[in-house]
Amino acid sequence: MNKTDKILIIGAGLCGSLLALRLAQRGYKIELYESRPDLRTTDISAGRSINLALSDRGFKALRLCGVEEQAREICIPMYGRLMHDRAGNTFASNYSGREDEYINSISRGDLNALLLNEAEKHENVNIHFNKKCKNVDIENNTAHFKDYKTGQELSVKADVIFGTDGAGSSLRKSYYLERKFLFSYSQNYLNHGYKELEIPADKNGKHQISNQHLHIWPRGDFMLIALPNLDGSFTVTLFLSYNEGEFNFENLASEEKITQFFEQEFPDALAIIPNIKDEFINNPTGALGTVKCSPWSYQNKTILLGDSAHAIVPFYGQGMNASFEDVTVFDEILNKGLDSWESVFKTYEKARKQDTDAIADLAIDNFHEMRDHVANPIFKEKRKIEMDLEKTFPTEYFSKYSLVTFNANIGYNEAMKKGRAQDKALLNLIAGDEVHTHLNMTKDELKVILEKVKTETNNILEEDKIAGM
Amino acid sequence: MNKTDKILIIGAGLCGSLLALRLAQRGYKIELYESRPDLRTTDISAGRSINLALSDRGFKALRLCGVEEQAREICIPMYGRLMHDRAGNTFASNYSGREDEYINSISRGDLNALLLNEAEKHENVNIHFNKKCKNVDIENNTAHFKDYKTGQELSVKADVIFGTDGAGSSLRKSYYLERKFLFSYSQNYLNHGYKELEIPADKNGKHQISNQHLHIWPRGDFMLIALPNLDGSFTVTLFLSYNEGEFNFENLASEEKITQFFEQEFPDALAIIPNIKDEFINNPTGALGTVKCSPWSYQNKTILLGDSAHAIVPFYGQGMNASFEDVTVFDEILNKGLDSWESVFKTYEKARKQDTDAIADLAIDNFHEMRDHVANPIFKEKRKIEMDLEKTFPTEYFSKYSLVTFNANIGYNEAMKKGRAQDKALLNLIAGDEVHTHLNMTKDELKVILEKVKTETNNILEEDKIAGM
Repeated sequence: MNKTDKILIIGAGLCGSLLALRLAQRGYKIELYESRPDLRTTDISAGRSINLALSDRGFKALRLCGVEEQAREICIPMYGRLMHDRAGNTFASNYSGREDEYINSISRGDLNALLLNEAEKHENVNIHFNKKCKNVDIENNTAHFKDYKTGQELSVKADVIFGTDGAGSSLRKSYYLERKFLFSYSQNYLNHGYKELEIPADKNGKHQISNQHLHIWPRGDFMLIALPNLDGSFTVTLFLSYNEGEFNFENLASEEKITQFFEQEFPDALAIIPNIKDEFINNPTGALGTVKCSPWSYQNKTILLGDSAHAIVPFYGQGMNASFEDVTVFDEILNKGLDSWESVFKTYEKARKQDTDAIADLAIDNFHEMRDHVANPIFKEKRKIEMDLEKTFPTEYFSKYSLVTFNANIGYNEAMKKGRAQDKALLNLIAGDEVHTHLNMTKDELKVILEKVKTETNNILEEDKIAGM
Repeated sequence: MNKTDKILIIGAGLCGSLLALRLAQRGYKIELYESRPDLRTTDISAGRSINLALSDRGFKALRLCGVEEQAREICIPMYGRLMHDRAGNTFASNYSGREDEYINSISRGDLNALLLNEAEKHENVNIHFNKKCKNVDIENNTAHFKDYKTGQELSVKADVIFGTDGAGSSLRKSYYLERKFLFSYSQNYLNHGYKELEIPADKNGKHQISNQHLHIWPRGDFMLIALPNLDGSFTVTLFLSYNEGEFNFENLASEEKITQFFEQEFPDALAIIPNIKDEFINNPTGALGTVKCSPWSYQNKTILLGDSAHAIVPFYGQGMNASFEDVTVFDEILNKGLDSWESVFKTYEKARKQDTDAIADLAIDNFHEMRDHVANPIFKEKRKIEMDLEKTFPTEYFSKYSLVTFNANIGYNEAMKKGRAQDKALLNLIAGDEVHTHLNMTKDELKVILEKVKTETNNILEEDKIAGM
């Protein structure tokens, strides 16, 4: 491996463009291919502005590449969830008891444009748009593309090929179909799909509901969420079963039924989504899938990064952050000075795989938690205690959410293991009537709870260990 | 759905031939296609006799089809494991404390032949050999075959198509590639492969080592097992990493290294495997994969049964039993008198899926347990206590192994949940010095242990439940 190696990156989305930027900064020669047109000059949004939650792991990678501050300029901080019930009552639940811990709403398109601009400043980066990868001949390091504009096919040979081509990765599909090695692979869909809708800005261009929160309308079998955009609008996402329950995507087939559904379940949201019927009917229904696979790389030739290696459901707000963290970890492995791409790839996967598996599982957990548990009294009590503990003992207590979201120095896998044990400890202490809260807890009272949680968490971890789990 | 429906079954292995038999008994018209030649008239064993472990869930299905007794006649009971250490010392560990609970070694080929013979007795069954299924047009209920003898291609249209074509199922691959619906799918390989070897009969045609045991040579990173055959031989299987550890399939590339490996690790086995070098070099190395998927069926047209729906690793001895149990459960669903194949298929998957997922996970657990834990003192102590409990309280205590293997009235999923909690309880009671054993435990002493285990098991299940696990 040396700096004259020709590196082909397939996919100039968030992960691919950040990777191109970082490898360019390290001096590599990059050819970056993207199936879609240049989103900086062509509107590919189909009228919808998609936003994402950016948090500490994402920022860490952006910082590495020198673009953290630019990204922060287009962020909208969200300090907590704001829950909406059917009657329109709201209650807030902060993401952390520490004031400097919050997540951020950011436009996917704006962030992608920022990264492409930065990558393009490097003369060792060439970006090619409208080139759709059909498949990769992994034995011969050759990717086959079709140009969407001219209809022509072309082949690109490289010394190393990175597949950052997302959940539907063509490189990953080539791994599966070429059968050159035992490829462990899973794609798992939830029985829920999603549909994006919009709450527009008011006539003054302002947000119609709090722009400091991620809004949630939890309803058990389904839910609505909304994240703010810089232009005063919100991108709303409905998560709903395809075919189960009283309301689902299959049976919401008429304008009447759609209106009835929103009137009954989300009246306060309906009041500020003016084009609900058109949007519901015209916007596509997306699938919610988790992809895991291994190995990510083939010899010293190809490797998967980002969603192509580990697509996850959006319920932990970590999809983009995990993909960006891939770049951080990959960069750390490059620092080791290993002698071949194959060693780099294998060392990277060994360091990274358990963490991307963990965030995939955590995201599925949160799907259930957001739908089912936010209204459960024991879970509510737990959140309240955790906020108090984080506020009172900011260097000693970190909830699972905080470990995952705000502690980029801890891997997802460790965060999951510790966080799950801690959740279990606290929930059982509450259910067993072993901890009690009241309105104005003293520090001493909280200290007792903190120690009980710590002891019980360690017991749980120890008992699992003895059982070989 | 009615009895004049033409049913196509792809794959006449163990599951397909049992399914054909059962559906024929119910009066359906069956076309059964198999890629290989008729194993009753052509030797397809490549010189190796493969055997499997048959136990209660398998017998239950065979009983349903009226062939249990015939199967028992070709069984060799194995009452426990016989562990061999490097020095050639052995120690036995029974599968159960109840005398009537044991597993059985049976020849795959002999059992398959028995089932084909029985199916063929029904005039509503036609069996077609040498017809390899290439793919299935699932929308049009049409399977495309290639005749291995003539080289000709042929298409078969049916009212309903059952895919019992094993772990490499072509029907399942068509689900994946046709993308008519969201298909959740996983194939996961262990980093270990396997290779079959043979301990021949002695010169009198007798077994050279105990034929009442499943022999295990556990060595941590790898292991050897052996199951007896009726002809006095044993089929031996080596489980070994492809590329990790001091010895692995990649680096065992010379006769010297192979001999060195067996001399060092399995000297007592080596002494009775005369053709070790030839067999090691000439016999193929097989992969150990787990396949899960969902949905198993498409509309009222096609369904996967057996390994095609849920291939598992062999470490719980449940692969064939789980596939046979599919037929039992499917038959129970047919008894409900539902009005369409689609309802039958969906009801079947709903009833069955959690159990096939569970046995897949249990089989992976046992891979680790057999390699790592059999020599662990706490695990050994646990097995000893469990044998005492089962012997002394035969209607009250059932180990996880017993729940899975000898209790066909309990689903795999329930067996897994209860069994795992019970294991965890007992291991932690031992580690915490809360239970003690000595050579001659009295019934009263054992009763105390039994109650502790019950209480602790219930605590564990309750705590998991509160934590939403």
